[in-house]
Amino acid sequence: MPRPRCSVYIATSLDGFIAREDGRIDWLSIVEREGEDYGFKRFFDTTDTLVMGRKTYETALSFDTWHYTGKRCIVRTHAPGESLHGEEFYSGDLVELMERLAEEGAKHVYVDGGMIISQFLAAKLVDEVTVSLIPIVLGEGARLTQKIGHDVGLELLSSKAFESGLVQITYRVV
Amino acid sequence: MPRPRCSVYIATSLDGFIAREDGRIDWLSIVEREGEDYGFKRFFDTTDTLVMGRKTYETALSFDTWHYTGKRCIVRTHAPGESLHGEEFYSGDLVELMERLAEEGAKHVYVDGGMIISQFLAAKLVDEVTVSLIPIVLGEGARLTQKIGHDVGLELLSSKAFESGLVQITYRVV
Repeated sequence: MPRPRCSVYIATSLDGFIAREDGRIDWLSIVEREGEDYGFKRFFDTTDTLVMGRKTYETALSFDTWHYTGKRCIVRTHAPGESLHGEEFYSGDLVELMERLAEEGAKHVYVDGGMIISQFLAAKLVDEVTVSLIPIVLGEGARLTQKIGHDVGLELLSSKAFESGLVQITYRVV
Repeated sequence: MPRPRCSVYIATSLDGFIAREDGRIDWLSIVEREGEDYGFKRFFDTTDTLVMGRKTYETALSFDTWHYTGKRCIVRTHAPGESLHGEEFYSGDLVELMERLAEEGAKHVYVDGGMIISQFLAAKLVDEVTVSLIPIVLGEGARLTQKIGHDVGLELLSSKAFESGLVQITYRVV
C-alpha cells in the first residue's frame, strides 16, 4: 500500500517566520484581496486528511467555525482533548501513522504547523511544499522549520507573483 | 545631501537561513551553473560602497582574492584590525555613517551580512532587498534577520525563476 502523498501549504514572511512570537498571524492581512485565495481552495479540495500540530489545532478551534468539515483530522499531541469535530489525537510514530492512513484510504495529506512540518521533513514524508511568501520582514517569531537533522533538497515546480506582492512557490521534495 | 541608496542582495534557504550554524555556505553550490551569476555582477557594478558585518568580512578575507577592489569598504566592528585592502572600520551610528558617506560621494551602498542587514532595517536605511531563494530547507543556521523591533513592509518589484530552481525576488522597502 503506497503511503499517501503529503503536502505542505503555508505562508511565511520573507525571513522565514510563520507567526509572531505570540502566535499572531495578523500580518497575513496585507495580502488579503477580495475573491483571491491564492489557490488555497483548489489545493484543499485535493486533500482528504489533515495532520496538524497542537498550536495549529488550537488556532483552528479559536475560529467561529470549524474549517475542516468533511476532512479526516489528526492532531499531533501528547495531551489529547475532547474531540469536538471528529478529530483524532495521535502522539506516535509518523511513519506508522502514514501506513495506517494508507490502509484506511487516505490519498493526500495536508501537513500543517511549523513543528509538525519539521517532523515530517525529518521523517522524509513530505512530497510537495508550497510556500506563499508574504511581502514583509518580521525579524522574529515562530520559524517555518525547527532542527531537521539533514538538508532537504527541493525541485522547483512553479512560482507565481501576485498583484498583492505575494510570491507563491511550489517545490517537489527530492 | 540625500543619503545613498542602500541595497541588500543575499541568498537564503527556503526557511530563511543565510549560512549554517558554523558559517558554511556550501549549500549555495546546488545552484551553481556555468556562466550564470543570477544578476550579481550587474547589481554589484551599480554599487560604489560596501558596508559589511564582521563575519562577512572574515569570510571575504578567507578567499584567495579580495573581491571588492575598487569599492569603498566599511566593516562594522568594535574590534578593528589591520586594513589590508583599504577597508575602513566603523562601530558608530549608522545614520551618521550614511550622512558621512553621502557627503563623501557615495551613491549606492551594498549592505551585506545578516546582523548588519537587521541593523540597517531597524534604522530604516534599506531601500531595496533582493533575495535569491535557494531550493533547500536547512532547518537551522544563521538567520537572515535578527530582532528588528518593527515590521518591515515590502513592495514586490520583480520575481524570476531560474532553471536551477533558484527564485530571485526584489522588493522595495516601504
